[in-house]
Amino acid sequence: MAVYTHLGAEDLAQLIAQYDVGELVSAKGIAEGVSNSNWLVETTGRNGGGTRFILTLYERRIDYADLPYFLDLLDHLAGKACPVPRTMHDRDGASFRMVEGKAAALIEFLPGVSPTRPTPAQARAVGEVLARLHLAAEDFPRSRANAMDFAATAAILEACGTERLATINPALPAMLDHARTAAALDLTALPQSQTHTDLFPDNVLMLGDRVTGLIDFYFACTGPMVLDLAVTHAAWCFDAANAYRPDCGAALVQGYQSVRPLEAAERALFADVAKGACLRFVASRAEDWLDTPDDALVTRKDPMQFARRWQFYDQAGDGLLA
Amino acid sequence: MAVYTHLGAEDLAQLIAQYDVGELVSAKGIAEGVSNSNWLVETTGRNGGGTRFILTLYERRIDYADLPYFLDLLDHLAGKACPVPRTMHDRDGASFRMVEGKAAALIEFLPGVSPTRPTPAQARAVGEVLARLHLAAEDFPRSRANAMDFAATAAILEACGTERLATINPALPAMLDHARTAAALDLTALPQSQTHTDLFPDNVLMLGDRVTGLIDFYFACTGPMVLDLAVTHAAWCFDAANAYRPDCGAALVQGYQSVRPLEAAERALFADVAKGACLRFVASRAEDWLDTPDDALVTRKDPMQFARRWQFYDQAGDGLLA
Repeated sequence: MAVYTHLGAEDLAQLIAQYDVGELVSAKGIAEGVSNSNWLVETTGRNGGGTRFILTLYERRIDYADLPYFLDLLDHLAGKACPVPRTMHDRDGASFRMVEGKAAALIEFLPGVSPTRPTPAQARAVGEVLARLHLAAEDFPRSRANAMDFAATAAILEACGTERLATINPALPAMLDHARTAAALDLTALPQSQTHTDLFPDNVLMLGDRVTGLIDFYFACTGPMVLDLAVTHAAWCFDAANAYRPDCGAALVQGYQSVRPLEAAERALFADVAKGACLRFVASRAEDWLDTPDDALVTRKDPMQFARRWQFYDQAGDGLLA
Repeated sequence: MAVYTHLGAEDLAQLIAQYDVGELVSAKGIAEGVSNSNWLVETTGRNGGGTRFILTLYERRIDYADLPYFLDLLDHLAGKACPVPRTMHDRDGASFRMVEGKAAALIEFLPGVSPTRPTPAQARAVGEVLARLHLAAEDFPRSRANAMDFAATAAILEACGTERLATINPALPAMLDHARTAAALDLTALPQSQTHTDLFPDNVLMLGDRVTGLIDFYFACTGPMVLDLAVTHAAWCFDAANAYRPDCGAALVQGYQSVRPLEAAERALFADVAKGACLRFVASRAEDWLDTPDDALVTRKDPMQFARRWQFYDQAGDGLLA
């Protein structure tokens, strides 16, 4: 959560001049994005276009070969009236440019704030929008493999090793076995589309009960739609004490199904897929935990939060969507 | 440069509701302020008032007893058409509120970007605005002592100790003697006003050659106006290789004097005051340097940058404003 690369006002003005968005009026480095530098940029605008943008400089973790997938997907979805920010194209039509050896993209700014204690009405709205996104993305011509699929999850936990996992929490080593079970699931027959796969409340902008923006598509990939719903379910429907909130869970799924009813096969696998989704966050958090020195200033996210949610889905089983 | 305190959307909305500025539309944590948390906040607005604000949560370093001085000074200056952001007052008329045990202020957002390679025209404009600020602040009814005056500078360098200063650079210990010399200067007879005393380009917003905002008044204090000009001179008139830029220096002073001509006593002491100003930054940077572990992720500012500028003023002497 920081600005990793310094870009001076003159550098920013020169970069903005490559786009038909008017002249630079303001630029503030914003404390968002774990591995990117981001600025909230204001310009004088052009021909009824917007005047505010998020300028993102991609620092690491992101394979630049994936940028056309991420950025074109935004355009595709925005073109179908999904609430996602448009990618601005430069005067040559490019969706990203290189600046000081790094890729940079200028993306539409959307209003809204991220709920920290979502209400059922907000969960319902997010479910609806997620289903609209899935339907709108079905004919998107690009595809991208899920680099964090269940097999990757098991491999990460395996690389952590049960001994080191146990140093975080004695309950963690068992998660490796569960991850292997999830990796053996065959999801290929489930309906696929482009999926966000990281739709935490942080990545949703809302005004009241209305979704004004889905953002941060840098884990987006081609895959089973029900996995995306399961990730969102696991991310939205637990309170600060990690207790399941049945009202939010029901509202999210209801909202989703009001646009795209789940197929029987998706419903049957929902709890198993949600367990796999939890393990994905257990794995990445455990890896970060072990990679981060104890005395680092960075706040580590506790992998046990999602190990406990895994347990919820394990116990809830098939009854969850009944 | 970070957001130190997490405030959720609901917390922010509740805070904003205490002001007559409409409803919360957007809030982004911004990477500004060394010891505060800052958000760029957008609201629906009220009665022709603004819709964008900087919300500052004061984390540390700042004595809350000083807040009325800082915040009322902004109002006083804005009321006299100086380009500084207004402090918003809450429904009870208060200029700051307590949030989670910390003071919070809502301050007008101003457009503009901070130049990193200022032009002489920009330096001239800053000189003009600084002089206008000094004149506008003369009848400000509050006062605040300069906690970083020349005596404090000498005390900080003394506390660092010559041995530890030498570990940073062998040329630093000599700066302690120079700081003692500066501390002996009697500036009490020089014309006083409220002064910014930290007017680096970072703290100036500009659109082209026009100053749209002076910001970050948290070192503001009552003191000799020529010290403020000297700080600004030392901060603006050297290039990236630390070479003096006579065109910028002349333009800054010319701009200042076009609004408020310096008195003979101020001109006579200018180089000595500028040397003291340089030592103030040598001292705070040396202190930070010694307090920051070598392997910390924080970028330390080199105290030698201003030790070298001290040398420039020492050599230039009285000829600088001739």
